[in-house]
Amino acid sequence: NSANNGMNGNGVHHVSVRAPVSVNPAKLKSHRQRWNVRPSEMSKKTLNPIRAIVDGMKLTPNPEKPMIALSIGDPTVFGNLPTDDTVLQAMKEAIDSHKYNGYAPSVGYQKSREAVSNFYSCPEAPLEGKDVILTSGCSQAIELAISVLCNPGDNILVPCPGFSLYKTLAVSMGIQVKHYNLLPEKSWEIDLQHLESLIDDKTACLIVNNPSNPCGSVFTKDHQHKILAVASRNCIPILADEIYGDMVFPGCDFQPLAPLSSDVPILSCGGLAKRWLVPGWRMGWILIHDRNDIFGTGIREGLVKLSQRILGPCTVVQGALESILNDTPPEFYQGTISFLKSNSEICFSELSTVPGLNPVMPTGAMYIMVGIEMEHFPDFQNDVEFTERLVTEQSVFCLPATAFEYPNFFRIVVTVPEEMMIEACIRIREFCARHYRPRSQDSHELDQ
Amino acid sequence: NSANNGMNGNGVHHVSVRAPVSVNPAKLKSHRQRWNVRPSEMSKKTLNPIRAIVDGMKLTPNPEKPMIALSIGDPTVFGNLPTDDTVLQAMKEAIDSHKYNGYAPSVGYQKSREAVSNFYSCPEAPLEGKDVILTSGCSQAIELAISVLCNPGDNILVPCPGFSLYKTLAVSMGIQVKHYNLLPEKSWEIDLQHLESLIDDKTACLIVNNPSNPCGSVFTKDHQHKILAVASRNCIPILADEIYGDMVFPGCDFQPLAPLSSDVPILSCGGLAKRWLVPGWRMGWILIHDRNDIFGTGIREGLVKLSQRILGPCTVVQGALESILNDTPPEFYQGTISFLKSNSEICFSELSTVPGLNPVMPTGAMYIMVGIEMEHFPDFQNDVEFTERLVTEQSVFCLPATAFEYPNFFRIVVTVPEEMMIEACIRIREFCARHYRPRSQDSHELDQ
Repeated sequence: NSANNGMNGNGVHHVSVRAPVSVNPAKLKSHRQRWNVRPSEMSKKTLNPIRAIVDGMKLTPNPEKPMIALSIGDPTVFGNLPTDDTVLQAMKEAIDSHKYNGYAPSVGYQKSREAVSNFYSCPEAPLEGKDVILTSGCSQAIELAISVLCNPGDNILVPCPGFSLYKTLAVSMGIQVKHYNLLPEKSWEIDLQHLESLIDDKTACLIVNNPSNPCGSVFTKDHQHKILAVASRNCIPILADEIYGDMVFPGCDFQPLAPLSSDVPILSCGGLAKRWLVPGWRMGWILIHDRNDIFGTGIREGLVKLSQRILGPCTVVQGALESILNDTPPEFYQGTISFLKSNSEICFSELSTVPGLNPVMPTGAMYIMVGIEMEHFPDFQNDVEFTERLVTEQSVFCLPATAFEYPNFFRIVVTVPEEMMIEACIRIREFCARHYRPRSQDSHELDQ
Repeated sequence: NSANNGMNGNGVHHVSVRAPVSVNPAKLKSHRQRWNVRPSEMSKKTLNPIRAIVDGMKLTPNPEKPMIALSIGDPTVFGNLPTDDTVLQAMKEAIDSHKYNGYAPSVGYQKSREAVSNFYSCPEAPLEGKDVILTSGCSQAIELAISVLCNPGDNILVPCPGFSLYKTLAVSMGIQVKHYNLLPEKSWEIDLQHLESLIDDKTACLIVNNPSNPCGSVFTKDHQHKILAVASRNCIPILADEIYGDMVFPGCDFQPLAPLSSDVPILSCGGLAKRWLVPGWRMGWILIHDRNDIFGTGIREGLVKLSQRILGPCTVVQGALESILNDTPPEFYQGTISFLKSNSEICFSELSTVPGLNPVMPTGAMYIMVGIEMEHFPDFQNDVEFTERLVTEQSVFCLPATAFEYPNFFRIVVTVPEEMMIEACIRIREFCARHYRPRSQDSHELDQ
């Protein structure tokens, strides 16, 4: 009865229906006569502005000074901010259990989803396991959220300055990006009037990033209510990028957006990366907040379908998730936060007395944005040249904020060891002193 | 000097340029007056045929018989095929090193890429680290490969029967899928004439899956040369899905496609999932084979750009990769393979004497396809009904091959413990005996 031993009814039928006999059909059709393999339009449209800018810079450090990189948004690179032992122990227990080697559901193990929903649920915005989609890092959370909410030709509203991934993803999908302004003089609050002016009938989603990369700012409850009001009266769902949630300095209060919303449906994106200091593990999630059933089953099912394209995050990390969330001692978070605050204060107080620089004191996350009064630095055309020469002369690398669509600023990462932060500030001061020109009103007018 | 303390030149400039004053701009434009959030077209087009079919089935097992699921392509579910201790040990060492918590480059650590290139390099198809892209499972490898080679409106050639993910991904990206036939009577070799008849000037990629899911077949060297000849004379690059590479039975030889190619550029997709029995860990890779420089830098750069969308696989697994590849003892692979062969032989020999069934003996991977002579089972309209009732009556679940676009077959996964395999075969025999009708020529003609 084996089909190996001869013709099989089904097989024969199959062939005869689908492959009608024809004489060298390739000759009857147009087909390629020579090799011409080109990268797809989508791959060409996938642009990473940080890479484009950094790769275009001449970064040759001063050989007499050791390099200090204040550019990398990875808290683990200097080894001074290790994750907690609880987190590593949970991973080893997950491995030893032999339970987490097979496939998980594409949205994650139910138990792991419930661990996340229990961790983030609150009376004003209750969550269950079904409201959580586990993803391969917060990047994939953002990708899935944009993918499910937007069609090509739609537009999304993203902060300026803001994390470049939103634009990278959207543009690659044929979605237009509109930048709304943050106001440095108001601790980087959103210019709400500007935000609302950008909304049209093709606006599919508002991205709110709080606490902010690159600003290190944390919105007040009051400001978030105003953001929600704009979304509500224009009926725009929100993608809340809250990956730096709870990474706020003592005395400042982080408030997730969803509990403040009475109607606006929100996809809140987060993950282990920052708060638990393991960004390489690629464990992210989407929390679906939809108390008024505006997303309905459509968006939920869409997220499930999209998650099936590449399946979810590593099962070992999923297996460790419950213990990571529940057993990591509060002292671990507090230690990280007080270090970040202390380093931020050092950096802010050092640089705020440097003529020509305008640092904006952060209240969370792990960044400081520093404004450059370019008119006082005639040696440089822009923030890219400024930061390039800072490498050449002082071996200090800060990311020019042009990478965040925000020229004439640069971003400092405050996760480096304290002595490096102090040394970097001394070098930045020296660099600025050398290039600063206190321009008179006259010389200024000559330029106009 | 702090921008906190007042207006900042840059900020003001920014606002004045980008947000001209206007009276409630929302009123001047069309915008949504009520909530209308719908899932994107892409999410709606992301269809998983296996889910669609299985979710549509009434799967109510017979309460008197324990369920035996022969449907799940996950070798770990029954606990009888654990991964090797070396693999788990490598993970724990990676965790203890504290070196693999931060971000890796989006294409993976150089050292991990080199571990993969060293493992797969051979004189006929040499590989270096730069030729390897690490991905979040083989699924993402396939997604990136399709994404970089194809534009919307292009078509790709996929095997029938074949793994459903190719179609799921392609259709969601607006890429047309053309199915080429595999021939069960020729151990599932490709119908090369049919294959070539499908090629036109919009054909961007040929997907070759060897060893095959769902067929368990392994192509000979000679057959692969013929496949390459079709690709070569039509100038079509190949995506070789070789995730089951080296999972072939003793006496059969697996030959990767790339070393046989003199000109056809090949993206070979693989990963740890099957051979190392850890599919949940999501560690996959693309090997770029392009000795004649047909992909050139364009495809390579395209893959790098696409990898930056969500970054690569979990860094802990990346850190363990070198040890996993180099230190896992050969006995581990041999043990897995001889188990799969033994179970396949049991299943094949049992089912090939069942009237109405035509199993095709596999030579690799972990599946057997079984043809159903539907004309002898008048109780059922098709393979979906056949397998549905097999659950109802015998509590045995096999995936109907309609899920692989190949009706009138079903697929058996041979990774279950031996006693379950034997019991399942006994039940399938009982089920078939009950429903088989030896139809006379007359009764057959009545239907026509």
